[in-house]
Amino acid sequence: MLGNFKYDNPTKLYFGDEAQKNLADALKGFGNKVLLTYGGGSIKRNGIYDDVMAALKASGKEVVELPGVMPNPTVDKLNEGRRIARDNNVDFILAVGGGSTIDYAKAVSVSAWYDGDAWERFWVRQDDPKAGERIIPVGAVLTMAGTGSEMNGGSVITNRGKDIKIGKVFGSEVMPKFAVLNPRYTFTVPHRQMVAGIFDTMRHIMEPYFSGDDDSVSDYLAEGLMRSVIASSRAAIKNPEDYEARSNIMWSATWALNTLIGEGKPQDWEVHMIGHAISAYTDATHGMTLSGVSVAYYRHIMKYGIDRFARFARVVWEIPSEGKTNEQLASEGIDALAAWIKEIGAASDIASLGVTPSMLEGIADATLFMTGGYKMLDRSEVIEILRESL
Amino acid sequence: MLGNFKYDNPTKLYFGDEAQKNLADALKGFGNKVLLTYGGGSIKRNGIYDDVMAALKASGKEVVELPGVMPNPTVDKLNEGRRIARDNNVDFILAVGGGSTIDYAKAVSVSAWYDGDAWERFWVRQDDPKAGERIIPVGAVLTMAGTGSEMNGGSVITNRGKDIKIGKVFGSEVMPKFAVLNPRYTFTVPHRQMVAGIFDTMRHIMEPYFSGDDDSVSDYLAEGLMRSVIASSRAAIKNPEDYEARSNIMWSATWALNTLIGEGKPQDWEVHMIGHAISAYTDATHGMTLSGVSVAYYRHIMKYGIDRFARFARVVWEIPSEGKTNEQLASEGIDALAAWIKEIGAASDIASLGVTPSMLEGIADATLFMTGGYKMLDRSEVIEILRESL
Repeated sequence: MLGNFKYDNPTKLYFGDEAQKNLADALKGFGNKVLLTYGGGSIKRNGIYDDVMAALKASGKEVVELPGVMPNPTVDKLNEGRRIARDNNVDFILAVGGGSTIDYAKAVSVSAWYDGDAWERFWVRQDDPKAGERIIPVGAVLTMAGTGSEMNGGSVITNRGKDIKIGKVFGSEVMPKFAVLNPRYTFTVPHRQMVAGIFDTMRHIMEPYFSGDDDSVSDYLAEGLMRSVIASSRAAIKNPEDYEARSNIMWSATWALNTLIGEGKPQDWEVHMIGHAISAYTDATHGMTLSGVSVAYYRHIMKYGIDRFARFARVVWEIPSEGKTNEQLASEGIDALAAWIKEIGAASDIASLGVTPSMLEGIADATLFMTGGYKMLDRSEVIEILRESL
Repeated sequence: MLGNFKYDNPTKLYFGDEAQKNLADALKGFGNKVLLTYGGGSIKRNGIYDDVMAALKASGKEVVELPGVMPNPTVDKLNEGRRIARDNNVDFILAVGGGSTIDYAKAVSVSAWYDGDAWERFWVRQDDPKAGERIIPVGAVLTMAGTGSEMNGGSVITNRGKDIKIGKVFGSEVMPKFAVLNPRYTFTVPHRQMVAGIFDTMRHIMEPYFSGDDDSVSDYLAEGLMRSVIASSRAAIKNPEDYEARSNIMWSATWALNTLIGEGKPQDWEVHMIGHAISAYTDATHGMTLSGVSVAYYRHIMKYGIDRFARFARVVWEIPSEGKTNEQLASEGIDALAAWIKEIGAASDIASLGVTPSMLEGIADATLFMTGGYKMLDRSEVIEILRESL
């Protein structure tokens, strides 16, 4: 049953192979000084940087650059960004990149004008109801599909000193004011990163889907999105320049995690918690940590949510159900998921991501236990799942 | 292939059986003088009026009442509302009702401060790029699910003098600022109106779905929504006070027509055009006009979009496809739609809605021909479809 909730998502999206043509106009409503943040500089090689600078110039902005945002952005990098944003008194932050860069921009946005320790205030104190003092508005030019950060309030920051990676979901005041989504901008993403983004998207859909046993619109929407992601992924791994496939992947990724399909229902997120703990230990790519543990996790909890797993097999994978028990059908659905992970080239194990047996206890200690899935795990079960995923 | 588009939908939604508790807060951001518009007064019998007045009082508003909005609101009623809004210099319009009342509130919103003929300016001149002069912000308390008006810019107005009913879609500046969606508020809707709303929702999903032959996320989302509407409708006709079913119906209706599932793809809307023409002649309930002609329309155009109709059968109705031609499968899908229309008690014909053979030519003359479907109709085909629907 759909519970009480508020849906409040004001992000404007400009989508398509000409989406960047809207950027100058989109910027006009904001102040003059723009902090331009991006990653390792690939946007200078593929022309995206030039598109963005042209729009910034056309809208008459003064630009302060903040490059070097890493995958799994760190609290040290955050502190650098806060200093630059504040010293320059910027009016707007434009993030050009994937989820890490946009997450990072939001982190700077909420914490730049806070005087204390940003890690303690915004990431550790999960119960803090207020985002902070002055919030610097953020916009995004997306270059990699997967995290959904372009249309949500989420921000994940890593504290290397503590081997911990924590996500926080802020309200609509922190969501990007707008996002430019040009599927062509994702063509130059390395194949492995594309696949990681596809699996991350799939997980964002599975997290709310594998929770609750009621009848909810959200679950039907989730099934539609999963079917679309599966179909598009098969086309995209054959031809990464298949515009139709890449545009579907980009649009699915946005809607997988902009709060829509989770509204009014419980959600799981345990695999994300295990994945965050693995990334904190190994710096492995987020999406690959998720694919590496998903199959073992689902085999472990299947019996506690057997009807949903059977439905997943029947509706998402179109596995014929005649003459099968729910257990058989459910198991075949997980087999199909495992086969698809192999087919698209996502990680089927965590050893290949650099996880060694000696790390398992530490990863389990860094894992948060969630209550929304079909079975709340304990520490020993996390270790068991990690061991089966090696 | 997803085309270029802008998604811009800022409406905040408060959903659930306690949703009205947010109304006073939601009103606080707006001016002091509120035009309260509603229909025939059923909200005074079921307690919704009292809830709304309590919230208006709690937020310190001065209220001007504008009751009597009819189904298929007329241009005469619109002119009355424009006069009242302007004479009282209202700051906000709160619509309490179903799609007709919310459509009406938007119509008053865009036209109150326009000096000329509102019918000519806003409904006839479809090419007019600007919504108008001063726009009065609108909020909504939904009491009937179906039209999606609570989260879109659409407004349909009827000109009885001309036997014509025209819809216009305004931009995000005209969309409701917020909408209160309490599924319990729909419990007292007469059974026939509930069913009409369910079919209207289904049509809003089918209009974009039966168009285009590419691979698009939107179509997968549409399939999910249709499956949800079908499942929930079966529960709701058995027990109209099944909160889970009514909440799913309400949430599906909102997402069926808030632009999401139509983004970046062609759309049909021919059945809506025929339905509008029938309503202009007979004042029949909108959703029933749609169910009355849908089956004949689809049998007529099926061969032009055979793959999509076969997919509809397989995915939406779960009809086994083994050993069948696409034609057989497609035809069985339309049979399933026809059977569902009967099952939920929607109109299976238009004679029962008051359409007589002598009206068919006139209805065809009042029908707009759309280009987005699998076959663009001509006048004689509309007459043929109407005749088959009698």
